[in-house]
Amino acid sequence: MEQDIVPNVLADRYASPAMKALWSIRGRVVLEREYWIAVMKAQRDLGLEIPAAALQAYEDVKAQVNFESIRVREEETRHDVKARIDEFCALAGFQHVHKGLTSRDLTESVEQLQVFRSLQLIRSKAVAALAALARRAQVDRDVLIAARTHNVAAQPTTVGKRWAMFGEECLRGVSQLDGALHDFAARGLKGAVGTQLDQLTLFGGDAAKVAALEARVLVHLGIPHVLGAVGQVYPRSMDFEVVSALLSAASGPSSFAKTLRLMAGHELASEGFLPGQVGSSAMPHKMNARTCERINGFHIILRGHVAMAASLSGDQWNEGDVSCSVVRRVLLPDAFLAIDGLLEAFLTVLGQMEVNRPVIERESRHYLPFLLTTTFLMEAVKAGAGREAAHEAIKEHAVAVARDLRTGKIDKNDLVDRLAGDSRLKLPKALLVEAVTKVGELTGAAGAQVDAFVRLTEAWVKKVPDSAQVKAGRIL
Amino acid sequence: MEQDIVPNVLADRYASPAMKALWSIRGRVVLEREYWIAVMKAQRDLGLEIPAAALQAYEDVKAQVNFESIRVREEETRHDVKARIDEFCALAGFQHVHKGLTSRDLTESVEQLQVFRSLQLIRSKAVAALAALARRAQVDRDVLIAARTHNVAAQPTTVGKRWAMFGEECLRGVSQLDGALHDFAARGLKGAVGTQLDQLTLFGGDAAKVAALEARVLVHLGIPHVLGAVGQVYPRSMDFEVVSALLSAASGPSSFAKTLRLMAGHELASEGFLPGQVGSSAMPHKMNARTCERINGFHIILRGHVAMAASLSGDQWNEGDVSCSVVRRVLLPDAFLAIDGLLEAFLTVLGQMEVNRPVIERESRHYLPFLLTTTFLMEAVKAGAGREAAHEAIKEHAVAVARDLRTGKIDKNDLVDRLAGDSRLKLPKALLVEAVTKVGELTGAAGAQVDAFVRLTEAWVKKVPDSAQVKAGRIL
Amino acid sequence: MEQDIVPNVLADRYASPAMKALWSIRGRVVLEREYWIAVMKAQRDLGLEIPAAALQAYEDVKAQVNFESIRVREEETRHDVKARIDEFCALAGFQHVHKGLTSRDLTESVEQLQVFRSLQLIRSKAVAALAALARRAQVDRDVLIAARTHNVAAQPTTVGKRWAMFGEECLRGVSQLDGALHDFAARGLKGAVGTQLDQLTLFGGDAAKVAALEARVLVHLGIPHVLGAVGQVYPRSMDFEVVSALLSAASGPSSFAKTLRLMAGHELASEGFLPGQVGSSAMPHKMNARTCERINGFHIILRGHVAMAASLSGDQWNEGDVSCSVVRRVLLPDAFLAIDGLLEAFLTVLGQMEVNRPVIERESRHYLPFLLTTTFLMEAVKAGAGREAAHEAIKEHAVAVARDLRTGKIDKNDLVDRLAGDSRLKLPKALLVEAVTKVGELTGAAGAQVDAFVRLTEAWVKKVPDSAQVKAGRIL
Amino acid sequence: MEQDIVPNVLADRYASPAMKALWSIRGRVVLEREYWIAVMKAQRDLGLEIPAAALQAYEDVKAQVNFESIRVREEETRHDVKARIDEFCALAGFQHVHKGLTSRDLTESVEQLQVFRSLQLIRSKAVAALAALARRAQVDRDVLIAARTHNVAAQPTTVGKRWAMFGEECLRGVSQLDGALHDFAARGLKGAVGTQLDQLTLFGGDAAKVAALEARVLVHLGIPHVLGAVGQVYPRSMDFEVVSALLSAASGPSSFAKTLRLMAGHELASEGFLPGQVGSSAMPHKMNARTCERINGFHIILRGHVAMAASLSGDQWNEGDVSCSVVRRVLLPDAFLAIDGLLEAFLTVLGQMEVNRPVIERESRHYLPFLLTTTFLMEAVKAGAGREAAHEAIKEHAVAVARDLRTGKIDKNDLVDRLAGDSRLKLPKALLVEAVTKVGELTGAAGAQVDAFVRLTEAWVKKVPDSAQVKAGRIL
Repeated sequence: MEQDIVPNVLADRYASPAMKALWSIRGRVVLEREYWIAVMKAQRDLGLEIPAAALQAYEDVKAQVNFESIRVREEETRHDVKARIDEFCALAGFQHVHKGLTSRDLTESVEQLQVFRSLQLIRSKAVAALAALARRAQVDRDVLIAARTHNVAAQPTTVGKRWAMFGEECLRGVSQLDGALHDFAARGLKGAVGTQLDQLTLFGGDAAKVAALEARVLVHLGIPHVLGAVGQVYPRSMDFEVVSALLSAASGPSSFAKTLRLMAGHELASEGFLPGQVGSSAMPHKMNARTCERINGFHIILRGHVAMAASLSGDQWNEGDVSCSVVRRVLLPDAFLAIDGLLEAFLTVLGQMEVNRPVIERESRHYLPFLLTTTFLMEAVKAGAGREAAHEAIKEHAVAVARDLRTGKIDKNDLVDRLAGDSRLKLPKALLVEAVTKVGELTGAAGAQVDAFVRLTEAWVKKVPDSAQVKAGRIL
Repeated sequence: MEQDIVPNVLADRYASPAMKALWSIRGRVVLEREYWIAVMKAQRDLGLEIPAAALQAYEDVKAQVNFESIRVREEETRHDVKARIDEFCALAGFQHVHKGLTSRDLTESVEQLQVFRSLQLIRSKAVAALAALARRAQVDRDVLIAARTHNVAAQPTTVGKRWAMFGEECLRGVSQLDGALHDFAARGLKGAVGTQLDQLTLFGGDAAKVAALEARVLVHLGIPHVLGAVGQVYPRSMDFEVVSALLSAASGPSSFAKTLRLMAGHELASEGFLPGQVGSSAMPHKMNARTCERINGFHIILRGHVAMAASLSGDQWNEGDVSCSVVRRVLLPDAFLAIDGLLEAFLTVLGQMEVNRPVIERESRHYLPFLLTTTFLMEAVKAGAGREAAHEAIKEHAVAVARDLRTGKIDKNDLVDRLAGDSRLKLPKALLVEAVTKVGELTGAAGAQVDAFVRLTEAWVKKVPDSAQVKAGRIL
Repeated sequence: MEQDIVPNVLADRYASPAMKALWSIRGRVVLEREYWIAVMKAQRDLGLEIPAAALQAYEDVKAQVNFESIRVREEETRHDVKARIDEFCALAGFQHVHKGLTSRDLTESVEQLQVFRSLQLIRSKAVAALAALARRAQVDRDVLIAARTHNVAAQPTTVGKRWAMFGEECLRGVSQLDGALHDFAARGLKGAVGTQLDQLTLFGGDAAKVAALEARVLVHLGIPHVLGAVGQVYPRSMDFEVVSALLSAASGPSSFAKTLRLMAGHELASEGFLPGQVGSSAMPHKMNARTCERINGFHIILRGHVAMAASLSGDQWNEGDVSCSVVRRVLLPDAFLAIDGLLEAFLTVLGQMEVNRPVIERESRHYLPFLLTTTFLMEAVKAGAGREAAHEAIKEHAVAVARDLRTGKIDKNDLVDRLAGDSRLKLPKALLVEAVTKVGELTGAAGAQVDAFVRLTEAWVKKVPDSAQVKAGRIL
Repeated sequence: MEQDIVPNVLADRYASPAMKALWSIRGRVVLEREYWIAVMKAQRDLGLEIPAAALQAYEDVKAQVNFESIRVREEETRHDVKARIDEFCALAGFQHVHKGLTSRDLTESVEQLQVFRSLQLIRSKAVAALAALARRAQVDRDVLIAARTHNVAAQPTTVGKRWAMFGEECLRGVSQLDGALHDFAARGLKGAVGTQLDQLTLFGGDAAKVAALEARVLVHLGIPHVLGAVGQVYPRSMDFEVVSALLSAASGPSSFAKTLRLMAGHELASEGFLPGQVGSSAMPHKMNARTCERINGFHIILRGHVAMAASLSGDQWNEGDVSCSVVRRVLLPDAFLAIDGLLEAFLTVLGQMEVNRPVIERESRHYLPFLLTTTFLMEAVKAGAGREAAHEAIKEHAVAVARDLRTGKIDKNDLVDRLAGDSRLKLPKALLVEAVTKVGELTGAAGAQVDAFVRLTEAWVKKVPDSAQVKAGRIL
């Protein structure tokens, strides 16, 4: 890294080597050259005169990337594609690339290829995260915790169910990524304004040959569909489709991270430390949820990318122009680098996080009596108390206990004692204590929902098998 | 409309009656009551004691909506759902609704139903617009026009192909809407924190019965899937999925509208006038593309809604809260009202727009010689001129003609004359004129692409048959 | 409220009567008529023949607003401004309004007036909120609390300082609102394309008279500046300036609300209950920070409005068009209704919130020993321990205590005991306990910062005296 | 530039050397070291023991930036600030930096300094662009052109007035930048949670010394104000203030660029070619408005940055955290690099653009008769025709001519002939022709508005004198 440049922070600090390779200068140039070679091979097979020696020469030099040389050419010609054609031809010693192509036949195709492969990478990583989350959900499947609504204790649930709940949102995200891959369509070889005029001219007006050429190129790209009527460019709302799928994929992890930050504030859980890591030197006890904060930050970055993509969409003038060019040069790599960094961070947290069961239990003891008021009411009615009177009595005590805790009159929740002492309710203390003890039975469908989430995750792992190979890198 | 209120402009001025009905006060209340009735029926069938007379009583009054009365109740209780329960029960004279339900069991379900039905409505309307656009594309299938890139004439295309090009983007949008419907998942009857505790309690812990109840309610909703592990709410990124599908659906129409505004500036086309309409009184010649401008405006509004939905996503605290509440009260109706108004406007334009073929032809004559320089070069080479010399000569003349037109030296493009007069090129004028005449052959795959677009559209019309019933309302 | 309409939720549920009046149907129509009358008066004074009886007639009927009648006229003429001219003239029985005006001379002026007056209203309300917050800061000026970074206890601060910290952000917001008012510039009477042609024609080319007319109209509007070279419209980036000032003004309250939600989760504070309000019937102990959640929701809505305004800006075609029209019809009222609702909610919370000092104290006791490790180190060194050894010992114990608390080995922070028992440190327990007792001295500049914030607030209250009249309405 | 990195495209392709220097790795490190030195000097002057030799040693090595070495340290310590402290101290051979500072005392200050200096740079460049635009407006002050509303010819204006109109929007932008600089406030030396505890401890509780230290550091920064009550961080809505000022500054150029693209489509103007540049090789006549398209692209990027900043604002948890960290690492440099690239592009266009007066004149001739219908009506009435009859007749002819042009029945606007031939109007052709000739008088206040714009610009140039030194770099 040179000192005088402004780095791409997302690549420099956060993204994985695989994602960076796809969007690096070298990566782009090599993809482009492979594309030219694929077109040339197809053109030759379909009858154009391109010597085998030329093809070989291009193959031989395709990995020789000299960005400085390309930049000098661009400054001379003021045309980026021409600069790269000239460089490749100079290296190979032949003049056969880019026949019948316009700039956009090349650049749209290569950019779509970068997007498509990046989507594949992200889908695998998102499935890997899903699997890691499912493992956590299984481990904590039956750990009772006070569920919170409005950030205040509400009803019992389990920690595993909480993870599964965020898993449910992750499942939606994976499904959106998968849909984006499934619906992906290449612009294809459509020429300067979309009519394929130049390829048709090259092949003497033979539409069948032009169709065959395009089909061959699609096989090279590996993209499932091809668009029909396009202009100079593919519709930019397709970029929005992709970027919004990335935001969807970021949302489950982001909701999870936000909740883990909340839990860390109560010491119920922490994102853990990397091996060797301690808290800050001045405050060694602090286990800051920095990586979770980062995940939330990436979500915000992606919202900005969604805004850019939304502004590009629905704004095509005639057959197209390049007002989107500078935007897409920033948007496409950065959106993928951001989601990649987010998933790296998420995998890291899932790998090292800690659930502090004793603290959770302590908190539950504090809140449980409040969470059982409905049960107490039923028991009181069974025991012969009048419904209305019992309800009023329980409410009175619950509100009083809450108030006394807040005002410091008491330190521990003594609702059970107060209810036992209220003759209106006819509730023996033993019965109340037993109810509190059996609260573990009040988590309803939590366990079953964890199991169902695990099964859905397993289906995705089977569908995207290379997700099993994904490992979190060592993050900064 | 009362004078003292601030209207919902999107509903008041732009949206269709069907869409407004879904989001009106009455519409919401009736949907909610139908939902309660469906739940009661299912609960009774599964063993709860709910008298037939009560069910009948609720049915009988479900359409009696008195918003003032509900509002008074809300101001007393400070709880909107409770206010609506009380009102319904007071009307029916029974107390059986909302058993074992929490507020969110009701409100999430009803809002999802509004969203789901709105999506269906929008899909039908979007397919109807697609069909109208396809008809236009067929009409103008072979009308030659100078395609423009960078807003400057580039190569020949056809008007029909241009419509098909925007149609291709509309197809993506329809596909996104269809995907959103296909993947739609209800939150279901999950209780206060997602564990189904209250329904389980109601049914004595019988999980099978609770599952059966939920399944019955899903049939009532008509929604294809149900979520598993949720909290108080369904993941808000699902709102983002929906709203981003709406923006996708808006993008084809918006690109079309932007180009029609450009074409109107050149008098190549206009969005036409409604019967009886004239231009402004001061400038009667003006045919302003106001409705197209409005379409572009709706796209911008939807971008704002996308931003809101993006901010809601990935921000869940624990099992949920209501920080999204005020946002969704604005976002959900307004996003659907906006896309509905956009499609109404689009249908109107498609129904009355005019293509000024004589003006298009005049423009083509002006630009054609420029667009044929490649052809001229080939002919010159055939006629014996050296390639490099011919290229240089043609370029010289093209640039000179362009400059002379801009500087007012000439009024008409005389490139053909200049080329014919240049001995380096050996091109007889007759040959050049013939080339210009045959330019209609240079639209490449334009016609075939129109045909393919029409076929794809027909498939959608078949898949969404009620699109055939959609008619543009009379817009303001 | 009619049952069949879709309400404007922001007006219907959240905004104050004063703000609604500015954006209501009646409010808009009356502002418009007053504007026409002001123009007529100025025109007459400058020499145009407009009878006094006509002026009187218009004055007499200006408050008679019949929206249905106007709507019928609009549907006939398909021109909203013409419909309103016709209605006003029919009521008055004269034909003198709108002389030499184009639609935009009217609509831009009236909309700017709505914006300007709304900004004034919001500035007053924001200053009132500032004052309420300053009162809270004074009350809690010296209440010790563990400041949190990364949501984890860090160093001591005071509750009052925390309020002042959010007050500092509110001050920025007030300053942005004030700047927006100070820089506000009217488009003025510039005619159809900005050249003032029609007014110049009306006054026989007398530029001085046209300038005088515009100056008179500005006095009526009360707006401090006027733009010079405009087109049909004022630059739409000015709407962005206003809406982004609103977001700035929303940010302090939103940060405050987010933190109060966090504090409520720890029972350190609550937003309190309205008189008569209790928690939910099922869980009477719950004091949910619903109004704070709503404040955060409004902030998200405003982000969406910022996105809309950003998309309008920088997009002017020639002298202007109406692609912004539908956007501004939604954006301008809704952004002001949202910030108004936010400030109403903020004032409500500030009026009824509760700080639970005993709970805060309990929390402090739990964290204080951790927060004092630096002090302990200094004392140990003073007592003769080696610096490095002491640091290592303290860190060992701090990490161990934190771990033991998390793993349930201990319930209370016993760091003081452990340090007292470690011979490496030579620290008598009494000294340690004394340090903990004197922690109130470790809040540094907190108190002084509160005082400074109060003084800055007082200056604003003096500058915007009607802020003293602002009262929070009763919110839903 | 290494081949394997993903470049920061905005820096690599578009921004100026001065802006890149501020945000480069070296730039950041050097600013940081200068800041540490300034703090040390102040601390020594206020009584801390820091040897002169140490200060000298730090000064001597401050420009020795070795990023690799810093990165290695960061990977060891997992703390970026600590890594940079260690590196600087190792280079200097002393341990005196960062006394009593927390990370944020350093990083917030240095980032604010980068922002502040970047704002200054942008203000100068924006004023330089304003001046260039004013020169254009003077040159074209009296060149008649048909103003367009709804992209359709409306009334006459002048080209210079059109430039002044965009200039008016640029003036707003400059004013926003200036306001942002004027209101800028440093966070100052506030310690870990904002209470200045550590500096107070360092200076034995002497608040006056701590205040003096902060004041000295502010002088070093050159920032006009300092915040009072802050937490760990300054309020993030201040980043939103800055980024929204940048979007405002981008809006005038963007509106201008959009209109120039429209004008290029009509060949009325072009953005010109750089010396030596020609159109594309295949279509040498094409003068594409690529740089204007790029300007519009930058505006879209900035909208995305505004969205990110809006999401950061109003989201502070307690005394702060680092969920904003990754966002600000991307947002702050990129927003400034984007506006810088935009202004570079704008300056380039202003330097080389061409106004094709003959084409403008041709267009005016085509539309003028339409634009004069109001004048014709007045003349007809003067000549004795009935007002209503004359209005009807003129409207009839105007609509018919428009229709005949669109349907190809006629090629040239013959409205004058038709009106002269209509006996209802009593208008001799000579009189009509004379009216058309004198249309130049119908540009109203256009010229005066240009003059006023020029004067306002001159005031800014005087206020920001270094704007005179700004030169457009050579853009790609």
